[in-house]
Amino acid sequence: MRTFVVAAVLTLFTSSLGILTTVSQTSGGYKYDYATVPFLGELLKLLVSTFLLWKESNKPKPPRITTDWRSIGLYPIPSIIYLIHNNVQFATLTYVDTSTYQIMGNLKIVTTAILFRAFLKRKISKLQWMAIGLLTIGTTVSQVKGCGETDCRSLLAAPIQGYLFGILSACLSAMAGVYTEFLMKKNQDSLHWQNMQLYVFGVLFNMIRLTMDDILGAYEKGAWWSRLLVGYNVTTWLVVLNLGCTGLLVSWVMKYADNIVKVYATSMAMLLTMVLSIYLFNFRPTLQLFLGILICCMSLQMYFAPPQSLVDLPTQPTTNTAEAHRT
Amino acid sequence: MRTFVVAAVLTLFTSSLGILTTVSQTSGGYKYDYATVPFLGELLKLLVSTFLLWKESNKPKPPRITTDWRSIGLYPIPSIIYLIHNNVQFATLTYVDTSTYQIMGNLKIVTTAILFRAFLKRKISKLQWMAIGLLTIGTTVSQVKGCGETDCRSLLAAPIQGYLFGILSACLSAMAGVYTEFLMKKNQDSLHWQNMQLYVFGVLFNMIRLTMDDILGAYEKGAWWSRLLVGYNVTTWLVVLNLGCTGLLVSWVMKYADNIVKVYATSMAMLLTMVLSIYLFNFRPTLQLFLGILICCMSLQMYFAPPQSLVDLPTQPTTNTAEAHRT
Repeated sequence: MRTFVVAAVLTLFTSSLGILTTVSQTSGGYKYDYATVPFLGELLKLLVSTFLLWKESNKPKPPRITTDWRSIGLYPIPSIIYLIHNNVQFATLTYVDTSTYQIMGNLKIVTTAILFRAFLKRKISKLQWMAIGLLTIGTTVSQVKGCGETDCRSLLAAPIQGYLFGILSACLSAMAGVYTEFLMKKNQDSLHWQNMQLYVFGVLFNMIRLTMDDILGAYEKGAWWSRLLVGYNVTTWLVVLNLGCTGLLVSWVMKYADNIVKVYATSMAMLLTMVLSIYLFNFRPTLQLFLGILICCMSLQMYFAPPQSLVDLPTQPTTNTAEAHRT
Repeated sequence: MRTFVVAAVLTLFTSSLGILTTVSQTSGGYKYDYATVPFLGELLKLLVSTFLLWKESNKPKPPRITTDWRSIGLYPIPSIIYLIHNNVQFATLTYVDTSTYQIMGNLKIVTTAILFRAFLKRKISKLQWMAIGLLTIGTTVSQVKGCGETDCRSLLAAPIQGYLFGILSACLSAMAGVYTEFLMKKNQDSLHWQNMQLYVFGVLFNMIRLTMDDILGAYEKGAWWSRLLVGYNVTTWLVVLNLGCTGLLVSWVMKYADNIVKVYATSMAMLLTMVLSIYLFNFRPTLQLFLGILICCMSLQMYFAPPQSLVDLPTQPTTNTAEAHRT
């Protein structure tokens, strides 16, 4: 039940993150440097985690903390994967258009499930595999361009490198997720202490990334810390706040639920964003969005509903229960 | 197993019917009067059934035949429903375009399942209901127009009467199917005798329809029997032959399998026709066709696979079997 509530809140936050990001744009562009937002997001998460760990340490039952360097040494890995992933994303986009890129992004649902099964050794029934397939198909269906929309002739007509990078991107994304779950569940350490370690490296690697970008750009826009907060408005701060909250919720899901719950939450959030965009940004509702939502809702039920409730047949004469079970 | 083979053959015949009908057109139109084809199809089925019944009656175990008029009186009803259905289809098409009409046609999957449950009192599990929903969605997804295709702005933007007629059409189609199943299964009569009764009325009602059309058209094209066989070529005869075989297979399915098997066979045939059209008529393959096929294949498994094979988890340490079953 608690998992369901957290997953629902995560869905709402992920969805509003997309909407806030769009709202924060001024006439199609950003007045602020968008690359500084994730850095502030990580910083916010670090501050919140530190505060929560301090509060927890004042409780009668102190938090469990492992300070072994061999354990701490495992925490930069998600940040490293994300750094590589960012560059692969960039490389992918040089080969494929954004529609194809968005559609290929759904592959990470399947890759996450595969790694979840292979590395975390979690059981997935045949019905649940079908549910995962349907979630991937459902999100893809919702993204199929309607008639009259532009740049769709190029859809799925990119060079082979584009698809290979897309698959690599889906694998890296899955690796980061599955590895984080492994990390959060490997011991009984306090969630806040685990988060602190994750976010220290998160802040660090974001700083490295910003510095690298500056060096590659030959400091044309000046150093990143001089651009920090420039052009920020209320919506930008809401994006930072939202990014922080979403991250903390994902950490909770990784420790107390799993990657599949996260995958469903983010997929549902994507659909919710599309529905809200119809009202907020006058997007044209499409038949394929409606069908995609139906498919994903069925997939959700297929994955999480107790199997007995799905295959048990409706009430029938007690005499042929045995026969009914064979049906 | 026999059901599976018949269903597969029915799928192939239904699919080739669509392709043969397209091939039989000369530069987009028919050189022959298309309305005469179903009449000949019914006549063919009547001849074949009569022949098979005669052969069966020479066997040591003679066929069961009920000649009670109260029983025979039930056989014109499918023909009457089809006659009404034809007129409703015609009315629907005055309100909606053919794309919308085609998409609304998928509704008959759902209406058939509802009547199948309600009138034939057949059990459908929650998973099977989802499978039926997915079959409807899958066929619809495959029909979503791709970008750049014409007349899609009008999609699902028809007056309300169009949709009401569409729903009525789906209900009539389901009624005819479910009633026929009831008729074929209500006693142990020979299939060929039951077919004979069905097709006598089929021939009769087709004649009535052709005559009515002639009267309404003020005999501008002459009487229908004078147009019979005019402009027929080999392909036209193949259409007639195919129509006859498909009808006989459907009868078999209604007696020894059920309406849901028929619905799956016709839906799969629709998808197969679309795939074959890519090769035969240079149709452009679309992402939505591919997704639709995946959805329908999963639906097929969800409906017909033994539930235990779907929800049973993969091999695991025997010690936590109990826990796994709770997952």
